[in-house]
Amino acid sequence: MTDDQRFGLSRHVSLPGPLRLDGGVLLSPVDIAYETYGDPASPAILICHALTGDQHVASEHPVTGKPGWWERMVGPGKPIDPARYFIVCANVLGSCMGSSGPATVNPMTACPYAMAFPVITIRDMVRAQAMLLDHLGIDRVTVVGGSMGGMQALSWAATSPERVTKAVIIASTARHTAQNIAFHEVGRQAIMADPKWAGGDYYGKGEPPAAGLAVARMAAHITYLSEAGLTEKFGRRLQAREAKSFGFDADFQVESYLRHQGLSFTDRFDANSYLYITRAMDYFDLAEEHGGLLANAFKGTATRFALVSFDTDWLYPTAESRIIVHALNAAGAAVSFVELTSPFGHDAFLLDSPELNRVVDGFLRAA
Amino acid sequence: MTDDQRFGLSRHVSLPGPLRLDGGVLLSPVDIAYETYGDPASPAILICHALTGDQHVASEHPVTGKPGWWERMVGPGKPIDPARYFIVCANVLGSCMGSSGPATVNPMTACPYAMAFPVITIRDMVRAQAMLLDHLGIDRVTVVGGSMGGMQALSWAATSPERVTKAVIIASTARHTAQNIAFHEVGRQAIMADPKWAGGDYYGKGEPPAAGLAVARMAAHITYLSEAGLTEKFGRRLQAREAKSFGFDADFQVESYLRHQGLSFTDRFDANSYLYITRAMDYFDLAEEHGGLLANAFKGTATRFALVSFDTDWLYPTAESRIIVHALNAAGAAVSFVELTSPFGHDAFLLDSPELNRVVDGFLRAA
Repeated sequence: MTDDQRFGLSRHVSLPGPLRLDGGVLLSPVDIAYETYGDPASPAILICHALTGDQHVASEHPVTGKPGWWERMVGPGKPIDPARYFIVCANVLGSCMGSSGPATVNPMTACPYAMAFPVITIRDMVRAQAMLLDHLGIDRVTVVGGSMGGMQALSWAATSPERVTKAVIIASTARHTAQNIAFHEVGRQAIMADPKWAGGDYYGKGEPPAAGLAVARMAAHITYLSEAGLTEKFGRRLQAREAKSFGFDADFQVESYLRHQGLSFTDRFDANSYLYITRAMDYFDLAEEHGGLLANAFKGTATRFALVSFDTDWLYPTAESRIIVHALNAAGAAVSFVELTSPFGHDAFLLDSPELNRVVDGFLRAA
Repeated sequence: MTDDQRFGLSRHVSLPGPLRLDGGVLLSPVDIAYETYGDPASPAILICHALTGDQHVASEHPVTGKPGWWERMVGPGKPIDPARYFIVCANVLGSCMGSSGPATVNPMTACPYAMAFPVITIRDMVRAQAMLLDHLGIDRVTVVGGSMGGMQALSWAATSPERVTKAVIIASTARHTAQNIAFHEVGRQAIMADPKWAGGDYYGKGEPPAAGLAVARMAAHITYLSEAGLTEKFGRRLQAREAKSFGFDADFQVESYLRHQGLSFTDRFDANSYLYITRAMDYFDLAEEHGGLLANAFKGTATRFALVSFDTDWLYPTAESRIIVHALNAAGAAVSFVELTSPFGHDAFLLDSPELNRVVDGFLRAA
């Protein structure tokens, strides 16, 4: 194994397409930024990232310098080990780390698409990934994802059952609820309310709408954490000050933490991409795509499924995973499901969780 | 009973004070806008309003033209009946409906205070209400409130136990949790990120920061509703359109509803008041004011307490009411507590709830 195989190889491909999107638009070319780890001759695992994730699953982020977002799961000695698998992780369509998205130059106008980029769906993201796997010569694949990554794994299994050996769906859902949509709408309105958003036409023209994007991130971030987790981590503890300031600075640690989450996010993420990807998530309703019955999405499937939820996840609570498990049962699919205990809410899938690692490892190793 | 007594009498008083605030500032004068219903000779009930409420508890709102915010509870034939009680409801300190707040003219500068208004606490609101009751010649009083109104009722009972005959605390809490603070901080950051906020100095100078305030309201509004209630009311139903627009207009009914909630709020509420009142709520921690032990707040009290929570309220869940009940038990206080069932989350206390009305009516009538 070369160092590139061990530590990740960052690549970019511009595929001619065209890709027919759910909204009816033909996208061409389709740029995909991705990373691979391991030997292309090994069994392939496609890792699908979440809303604000990217292809740097187990390599340093080029902007923040931070470790890959899932190094706890992916890497030498980890459940998804480049010594055993050929690991692919691609930046989703609509995102901002090199795959086609609103910041991409529109070949028809030679300007960035901005809001002229077509609205995409989770299934469109999956179609783009399928084009990438075709390009890489990968036929059969195991798909693994948490949160929005789990939506993609579900969509993969529903769209190309013949290609998907196994699917691991962690802390995810088969459809966005009204409350999920509501939180995303707050974020979108926060971005669009920022005058610097300028109808999305801010590329190369001025500062991006960082203030609006930071507020969007703050609101979303609360949904990633549990009330108990927030209480354990921050409670009502004050900042370094010993007493309340009787002002509007961040008095409480939780305020300071949230502000930091909001501001640091704007260094690495594009506001328009946030609009497009949240929209794709809100549109996601796998049952609706299959005549209103989720089981229809998996009829006759030979894919083996593993689902994991976390008991304090109130964004995609265990009940949402159960809905998927019941549908898979109804479709006669092979499925294992476990609810794990964690104080950390939805974010738990990204954090240190030996139990999650054991579940994923065992499922991937099983024949 | 005159019509004024039956239908509410809007009044305003400017008390010289000074009022010494928790932050150490002396406020003078103290303006209080309030309404009264019923005969001043009847037993007095003080109604404390929530974050965005006002004194128009059972009379038409002067800006929106809508009925009073608690006409289901207050009025002829209702549990809080002007035929039996002298009902007082005052706009809280820091608000924007006539009581002293950031929009009030600072007598020292002849300009609106804006962010020079002192940061206030729930206890400061209660102190101003006590000044009003002194002015009205009311000694003993029953205090009733939901949400932030319940915080005031608790603070009243802790601050002036000798004056408070009974206290009714509905859908409330004795302290703001990290999650509560986090949601408020998102709202404040949304307001402050709006360039029209201009450091709070927008009165008479330009448009107010309506976009930021609308986003703050949208985020908060989600916390007032339950996930189940949102699903029941909206689910994933689309607007009048028959299919998704593949754009960023409000496709889903819940988006349209939230946008309306945000926008309509800005017609009747001042952004700076939102900052000040959310800050007061975040600072609220009744145990902290009493050596860290909530029971100390009620030691030796003769006040009779009634607490009500709603099973789907995730802003101030039943567990928060139980903490109060346990403290009252520990203090040997007379307390009744009931958790009511409702699909409507925190908002349930403002909606039609015959059970809530029965509980309040029974408690007020009991000797």
